[in-house]
Amino acid sequence: MGVPQVLATFLALGELTNFLRLGFLRYWQRHGFCSLILLQHSLDGGVDDVIAPTQELSSVGLHVTATVMCASARSSTSTAQTAIYDTFIFALTDMVETERERERETRAEFGTSSCRIRHEGKPVYHFVGTSTFSEYTVVHVGCVAKINPAAPLDKVCVLSCGISTGLGATLNVAKPSKGSSVAIFGLGAVGLAAAEGARIAGAARIIGIDLNPKRFNDAKKFGVTEFLNPKDHDKPIQEVIAEMTDGGVDRSVECTGNVNAMISAFECVHDGWGVAVLVGVPNKDDSFKTHPVNLLNERTLKGTFFGNYKPRSDLPSVVEKYMNKELEVEKFITHEVPFAEINKAFEYMLSGDGLRCIIRMDA
Amino acid sequence: MGVPQVLATFLALGELTNFLRLGFLRYWQRHGFCSLILLQHSLDGGVDDVIAPTQELSSVGLHVTATVMCASARSSTSTAQTAIYDTFIFALTDMVETERERERETRAEFGTSSCRIRHEGKPVYHFVGTSTFSEYTVVHVGCVAKINPAAPLDKVCVLSCGISTGLGATLNVAKPSKGSSVAIFGLGAVGLAAAEGARIAGAARIIGIDLNPKRFNDAKKFGVTEFLNPKDHDKPIQEVIAEMTDGGVDRSVECTGNVNAMISAFECVHDGWGVAVLVGVPNKDDSFKTHPVNLLNERTLKGTFFGNYKPRSDLPSVVEKYMNKELEVEKFITHEVPFAEINKAFEYMLSGDGLRCIIRMDA
Repeated sequence: MGVPQVLATFLALGELTNFLRLGFLRYWQRHGFCSLILLQHSLDGGVDDVIAPTQELSSVGLHVTATVMCASARSSTSTAQTAIYDTFIFALTDMVETERERERETRAEFGTSSCRIRHEGKPVYHFVGTSTFSEYTVVHVGCVAKINPAAPLDKVCVLSCGISTGLGATLNVAKPSKGSSVAIFGLGAVGLAAAEGARIAGAARIIGIDLNPKRFNDAKKFGVTEFLNPKDHDKPIQEVIAEMTDGGVDRSVECTGNVNAMISAFECVHDGWGVAVLVGVPNKDDSFKTHPVNLLNERTLKGTFFGNYKPRSDLPSVVEKYMNKELEVEKFITHEVPFAEINKAFEYMLSGDGLRCIIRMDA
Repeated sequence: MGVPQVLATFLALGELTNFLRLGFLRYWQRHGFCSLILLQHSLDGGVDDVIAPTQELSSVGLHVTATVMCASARSSTSTAQTAIYDTFIFALTDMVETERERERETRAEFGTSSCRIRHEGKPVYHFVGTSTFSEYTVVHVGCVAKINPAAPLDKVCVLSCGISTGLGATLNVAKPSKGSSVAIFGLGAVGLAAAEGARIAGAARIIGIDLNPKRFNDAKKFGVTEFLNPKDHDKPIQEVIAEMTDGGVDRSVECTGNVNAMISAFECVHDGWGVAVLVGVPNKDDSFKTHPVNLLNERTLKGTFFGNYKPRSDLPSVVEKYMNKELEVEKFITHEVPFAEINKAFEYMLSGDGLRCIIRMDA
């Protein structure tokens, strides 16, 4: 059997460190096969083969020729092998705290704790299903989605994580109607994707909330019409929003992971029909608190994971949104580096400078 | 203009005292005209006239011949007048704490703080829109819904409050699918109506949760298939439910007003698709707390008011459910007293003995 070859990948550090902070793996266990691709550093490469698809999975049509975010088959090797950079090992070591956690994770991903990849005799654990900071990798069959072969890989690879998460949070979960008002908490890449979803849905007012005033200018490109910085106000931001919108917005999408922003996002929607969608990943010990009357007032509170997209069946349609120019992916890509300079990508993400950094494997 | 005459009414004390405990009137203000009937002690009488319908309301077809939960016109008088029993005044005085609250309430209901009814010179304030412990009353036009004239008033009057609330919480908000599992927290009249909704929807498992084991036998009549008493278990009841149902129920409906039951109801639904609906009215200082990961796991938390029925347009259809024998209203009616013995109805409710007590105005 051959191994998937990676052509382009990208880095979305924030989400990953957040997930790790949670300290448990319920996500992966719950979402099972289908969501492994969602939580990853993104795999976007030609796939020649996948390792041991289960009978159930192969019977639904995912066979050895299926591809991960790509349709072109590449030359294959007969055994799983990989060319891992030290950077990759470092990144994993840095983020996963204990050997035990790595073992649990591997087991959750592949149903076994045995490590699929080794580098100089040392195990290299997979992270969230598809570890793509390598030229070749081992990918769970559930992470494989066949997309339009004409799609440019160095663009659509970013759709395999946060961008689809934010977009789907709005389009699939919040579902704002044309002309409605939407509040977006957090204007990072996920929040901007949520705003992009509101723009696509035809929302009339898209209110962006962020502590960093520099983000507003960029946010305009994603449809944000008004900007609020909680630091500029003496009262809770949900009250400011309620005043601006005659009682509250129709929809809100929270993309920060900060539990207070989650509470504000819920409390800023209108009684009677308001829907708040939580996207951000909270800390392990966070507690969401609100007066239950806010719920009785016929509001809805929902969480979403990967924007409720089922990756294998739904991701191809997100790629189509890009192909037919409905979704503007280029706006999200602010940097590009060759794989040898992957550490620069980490620097961009950690400094909050830029949205998405493409890592070219062939450069 | 004439005044609505009351033919039959009923008592649902629990909800009312709960609402008062909240200490504010957001409900009434929010729901505006349409929900006033929902929160009331139920009005079910022939209506000859309504007081000053606004142009907007009269233009949508609510005219002097419209009825409140009844279609037969009765003889009218030329001015609003009423025959109030001392019992009625007592009931109001006992439940509404201050003169100021009564004023606020009247204003919320009628858009003015001027009192519509007086008894021996003293103002008699309306309570939640329609006060029906009297032979004649003043009703807001928004509380008026025209129903099937063949409907028996001494049965369908109970549909104007908690029964529709519980029924609608399941049918309109939780929306369980055929064959699904539903947990109902609290097996009072509202909870049993929620169970009735699950039964009508074809749920395969209806798990009733209550601290009173005596309630299970009655609950079977409403479709409850399994009973759980949190006192019988050492661990949180949501964990017990998750174990019984391979991870959680598909839907839950909370009808207690106890914030811990609300949290349990939310945490007992299945990741990925579970929907929890809060119906009970919480205390003023309650705080709903949960780990936000429970939301991210794609659960939905919703509140509902009057089961999301819009009274004027939707209540007639609930009456039809009874008329075509889909909904079994008789099961909810455990007592009946003449108006002169209204205090007995209070005793039944306060002792928890029985579900609904009809008060016959003509007896």
